[in-house]
Amino acid sequence: MPPTSYEYVTVQKVQGSEATEASDVLAAEEPLEIRVGYGPESQRQHRTLSVTMRTPGHDFELTAGFLLTEGIIRCREELQGIIYCPDVEKEEERENVVRAELNPASVPDLPRLERHFYTSSSCGVCGKTSIEAVHAASCPVLPAQGPYVATAVIHQLPERQRAAQALFEQTGGLHAAALFSPTGELLLLREDVGRHNALDKVIGAALLAGQLPLHNAVLLVSGRASFELVQKAAVAGIPVLAAVGAPSSLAVSAAHNFGMTLCGFVRQNRFNIYSHNWRITDEPELKPIG
Amino acid sequence: MPPTSYEYVTVQKVQGSEATEASDVLAAEEPLEIRVGYGPESQRQHRTLSVTMRTPGHDFELTAGFLLTEGIIRCREELQGIIYCPDVEKEEERENVVRAELNPASVPDLPRLERHFYTSSSCGVCGKTSIEAVHAASCPVLPAQGPYVATAVIHQLPERQRAAQALFEQTGGLHAAALFSPTGELLLLREDVGRHNALDKVIGAALLAGQLPLHNAVLLVSGRASFELVQKAAVAGIPVLAAVGAPSSLAVSAAHNFGMTLCGFVRQNRFNIYSHNWRITDEPELKPIG
Repeated sequence: MPPTSYEYVTVQKVQGSEATEASDVLAAEEPLEIRVGYGPESQRQHRTLSVTMRTPGHDFELTAGFLLTEGIIRCREELQGIIYCPDVEKEEERENVVRAELNPASVPDLPRLERHFYTSSSCGVCGKTSIEAVHAASCPVLPAQGPYVATAVIHQLPERQRAAQALFEQTGGLHAAALFSPTGELLLLREDVGRHNALDKVIGAALLAGQLPLHNAVLLVSGRASFELVQKAAVAGIPVLAAVGAPSSLAVSAAHNFGMTLCGFVRQNRFNIYSHNWRITDEPELKPIG
Repeated sequence: MPPTSYEYVTVQKVQGSEATEASDVLAAEEPLEIRVGYGPESQRQHRTLSVTMRTPGHDFELTAGFLLTEGIIRCREELQGIIYCPDVEKEEERENVVRAELNPASVPDLPRLERHFYTSSSCGVCGKTSIEAVHAASCPVLPAQGPYVATAVIHQLPERQRAAQALFEQTGGLHAAALFSPTGELLLLREDVGRHNALDKVIGAALLAGQLPLHNAVLLVSGRASFELVQKAAVAGIPVLAAVGAPSSLAVSAAHNFGMTLCGFVRQNRFNIYSHNWRITDEPELKPIG
């Protein structure tokens, strides 16, 4: 496993109302731009096909599998080679850009190529044309003071969400996103097979009701916290994001940059705080535990 | 919760080596095409912006949230209205196509619009330009005989996968996809923050090693089984897909159409078989249990 597949960070580990500083390991999440070269030697063309958020490692396999399963190539023979793109200017981005050269004799499905399509993993970035767009994500303004949320409130969120998740109880197959007040009242819950969609439904409901920005809300998501969920929450002005699962490395750095409080592994009376822990307080005095 | 949010199916419930027929409820997964109208009245333009795989229900909220969090609109005032598209020919698809009309006076981020971008939920369809493309997915040929897999082998897969998941043990934050032989030997495992990526890495590795089609392999995925995972596995020729989590309605119908055996909720000595149960046998006689 290459060292770029994970990252060490310092977190606040909360158990009950006690917080201690500890080291934690995160799964790395970084954008991979896939470029494709095609056409006869004399009219060789190159273009960006996709930016996907992935864990570094096995990048050429990921590229080959993507090209096959998305219908760009049909067999191995159509693929001449895959390399890390040598002409990327910034050295630190060089291992995040791969170039797949198709066989000059092979005729790729051009309409498919020309759709300029974008892929997105479950932690993906939708609709960004290049790796730069990921880093150029606009930085919304989150409240610099508060809201303050007691550790006891964070502990209760998953149970309150689950109690309201009618469809999950039946199918076991849905992600949920739920908005709570800083004192833990459930404001809104939406479910979807896609976790981006569950969050978009919540944010869209707030938008249509004229409730944005959601500066006084706490968001709980049922799964892991990816870069894109952090970004969507930030666009809606949500200052506190709690996830039942693990955050990725890029989710943590984005939350840090946006001024967002990010909690992960919220379950069984424990959770970790990955960024801006000053909003999480030790009830009832509401003093910061960080 | 609208009735279209779930679907009833008949499954084989396996416990130990006993199988019984039972009714089960699945989370519905269907494509939603988002179209956008923009520009002044006299030069009004419409285009498809995205096809996302979602659970029906709260579609207008999903659309509004998507437009906001993807940067197409910045506030509610830019949105004139959202309707189900009345000019969709097939009646059964009418509730899967929404049209968002932007305010004629508002100037949307045209370069963003023009990227024609596609979104994908964690169960999404990457790179399909329209709702038709989802249904026009090519139907690969899976083996009509075998491989036959014993129930005891299916039961063991999650433990064998977990034992090999080095990075998950550390981070708790990764999806995994693993190939096994029909007798349960681990052949290949890949991890990623994105479950599509984990599967693409597995398929890409097999492609680069000249091992496609994978007609004699069993695939285990760590999370839920979505339409797209079924489709990717089918492209690689994989006849048996087992998921630790729940399948969606569209995953089940796709597996049925592709001739793929789909197992879900594989854990704690139980699992459900959703399609083509003839490949799953009651060891040691290898007779079908279906």
